[in-house]
Amino acid sequence: MPQDREDAFAWIDAQRERRDRAGLVRRLSPRPADSPLLDLASNDYLGLARHPEVTAAAAAAAHRWGAGSTGSRLVTGSTELHTTLERELAEFCGFEAALVFSSGYAANLAAVSALSGRDALVVSDADNHASLIDGCRLSRAEVAVVRHADPDAVRKALDANEADEADAGEARRRALVVSDAVFSVDGDAAPLAALAAVARRYGAALVVDEAHGLGVLGEGGRGAVHGAGLAGAPDVVVTATLSKSLGSQGGAVLGPARVIEHLVNSARTFIFDTGLNPAAVGAALASLRLLRREPERAARVRTVAMGLYGRLTAAGLAAVRPDASVVSVRAPSPEKAVRWAADCRAAGLMVGCFRPPSVPDGVSRLRLTARGDLTEEQIEEAADVIVRTAPAA
Amino acid sequence: MPQDREDAFAWIDAQRERRDRAGLVRRLSPRPADSPLLDLASNDYLGLARHPEVTAAAAAAAHRWGAGSTGSRLVTGSTELHTTLERELAEFCGFEAALVFSSGYAANLAAVSALSGRDALVVSDADNHASLIDGCRLSRAEVAVVRHADPDAVRKALDANEADEADAGEARRRALVVSDAVFSVDGDAAPLAALAAVARRYGAALVVDEAHGLGVLGEGGRGAVHGAGLAGAPDVVVTATLSKSLGSQGGAVLGPARVIEHLVNSARTFIFDTGLNPAAVGAALASLRLLRREPERAARVRTVAMGLYGRLTAAGLAAVRPDASVVSVRAPSPEKAVRWAADCRAAGLMVGCFRPPSVPDGVSRLRLTARGDLTEEQIEEAADVIVRTAPAA
Ligand SMILES: Cc1ncc(COP(=O)(O)O)c(C=O)c1O
Ligand SMILES: Cc1ncc(COP(=O)(O)O)c(C=O)c1O
Repeated sequence: MPQDREDAFAWIDAQRERRDRAGLVRRLSPRPADSPLLDLASNDYLGLARHPEVTAAAAAAAHRWGAGSTGSRLVTGSTELHTTLERELAEFCGFEAALVFSSGYAANLAAVSALSGRDALVVSDADNHASLIDGCRLSRAEVAVVRHADPDAVRKALDANEADEADAGEARRRALVVSDAVFSVDGDAAPLAALAAVARRYGAALVVDEAHGLGVLGEGGRGAVHGAGLAGAPDVVVTATLSKSLGSQGGAVLGPARVIEHLVNSARTFIFDTGLNPAAVGAALASLRLLRREPERAARVRTVAMGLYGRLTAAGLAAVRPDASVVSVRAPSPEKAVRWAADCRAAGLMVGCFRPPSVPDGVSRLRLTARGDLTEEQIEEAADVIVRTAPAA
Repeated sequence: MPQDREDAFAWIDAQRERRDRAGLVRRLSPRPADSPLLDLASNDYLGLARHPEVTAAAAAAAHRWGAGSTGSRLVTGSTELHTTLERELAEFCGFEAALVFSSGYAANLAAVSALSGRDALVVSDADNHASLIDGCRLSRAEVAVVRHADPDAVRKALDANEADEADAGEARRRALVVSDAVFSVDGDAAPLAALAAVARRYGAALVVDEAHGLGVLGEGGRGAVHGAGLAGAPDVVVTATLSKSLGSQGGAVLGPARVIEHLVNSARTFIFDTGLNPAAVGAALASLRLLRREPERAARVRTVAMGLYGRLTAAGLAAVRPDASVVSVRAPSPEKAVRWAADCRAAGLMVGCFRPPSVPDGVSRLRLTARGDLTEEQIEEAADVIVRTAPAA
């Protein structure tokens, strides 16, 4: 019996060494409840995760409905609280119906896979989030990955698909165009109106992930799709997460009622997953109501992001002009990015640091999130620290 | 422009009609906070989802840590509360380390895909849960689906793999054997000791999903793997959910520290997903501590399940002898299963009803879950209702 048989995971050590040499080992750094750091790293864009109304709603829901939903949504995991959130979320974003999932990741797996399938074509932006990419993989559809934010590339993919069908004398097959509304790494917005027009021309449906759009873009934070006048369109489906602007956990798919009904009947991450826990449902609902009552929260996030961007570029840093709440700043290398983030931390500032393989283009960067509840002083302090600790290129 | 171009989702209506004709349309039936029904449908095996200690812990965690974890685990989504749960869960189940996910589904996607890969073979039980199957699909590994609960079929698949390698003169490739500990539909346990022995003989790792084993099987509910003497083995990895016996939400992977570190660095559903919300973490931790303090809860579930099974078979129903907490009873058809469940509900009893495509073999059944907190009277009442409403074959 060969020696290596005794160690089923020997290959893990080899991979670890390679990661170590490349400076790409990741470690968890759990935070205390009351961190003294200024947070520009979380996705709590509206500062609602610790809003007293939101945490009180989470606590009340746990007491009233239990700590868990106790089953899959089709068995015991749907409470009336889930239904209320679904109704109010759909209404707010301008869609006929909504369906809540245990995470945004699960919602994306569901939307992409249940709306395509082996006999379909999915046209997917090259910078789409991992969960959309995994949805493509699960779907077993043919996937055309197209250049980032390029409606003409989408057109070409749909056109090639039609030509293939005509050649083969086949019936038209389903096609789905899939894009983030706001891309998570660089914070740039997708050309939604153009994407929708192209998709429509070819009878394709459009799936848009509003993870970073909800609560930030569109009228009162209704999202980029709403802002583009596409909310409620018969061929547009939106996915969202309850874990960023809404400060909770969970995901949702919004769209025409028949699409939602189709997901209830066919989406594996809906049918075979336990329903979202009541505390998370209650918290998301409270955040949504707060946002409806205080629509200026959404505009404020955008102002903060632009203020931060302005300060950083004025100091000569290579920041990307933010379309929403994420400000991305390039770093010369993964090692320097990690060092930069560590120096920020030492100076009291928590920033995100994205390195391969979490970036689509191999470029490492700091990722700053503009929270709507940051004060002018905090924004200035943050910019100062980032500029002061910036590495030489 | 052809007519159908105007309706990107016309195909959904066609699928809906087919489902309708087959009697397979699913509808959500949200429950109120205080349902008068006797619950034999949820997966709240220990009755902890509404235990005052558990709901209080959920509420306290939301107040102290916020309603959401605010980011992915590697950015801001790891709190010290997550670390405490990971440490105590690993300790309880007898593993070196643990990693918490937003759901059991996400934990399974992570374990299967990050521990296999394009150059690997995964040997998967034919009745494995949807999330394990999706993990196989995402992994892009070669997948050998083998007969249910059949270690010899696993042996053959691993053997064929070795022969192929020898023929091709290739180096040994990674192999992973994957199984539910307790199968969710029929409630039968996997032959873990035999599976582990076979896997070890071929240098393959074993991944076991304890979704329905944790809290029910093994000493004090430590799980089937612990019961089989496999906890902490260097080539065994366990996945679990926090949403069943622990009455909360979330998932976990348990195993050797190097495996957990590997997941932190490579599992997409870990890296690109928001961390579990604090209320769910706090609730799961409280349940775990309760179970540690009151180990008799696990034995009680098994007693209840056997009591229920005894009553049903004595009345002539085709129930499967339960190895854990799930009692499965065959129904003659999907329509009769739905009718049966509806009749139970009308009589005050909530039961699960599993139909295609949620069953591996096309056979519809009632799925009853024995909760440890059911009284003798409730068990008797439940059995009476089920027998009384049973359809003629
Ligand atoms: C664009 C995008 N989509 C989806 C997700 C997944 O959402 P969740 O964390 O709620 O699973 C994220 C981040 O987590 C994201 O950035
Ligand atoms: C065997 C099994 N594994 C995994 C899961 C998924 O766990 P979760 O619901 O926590 O996502 C379930 C049920 O939901 C299950 O029955």
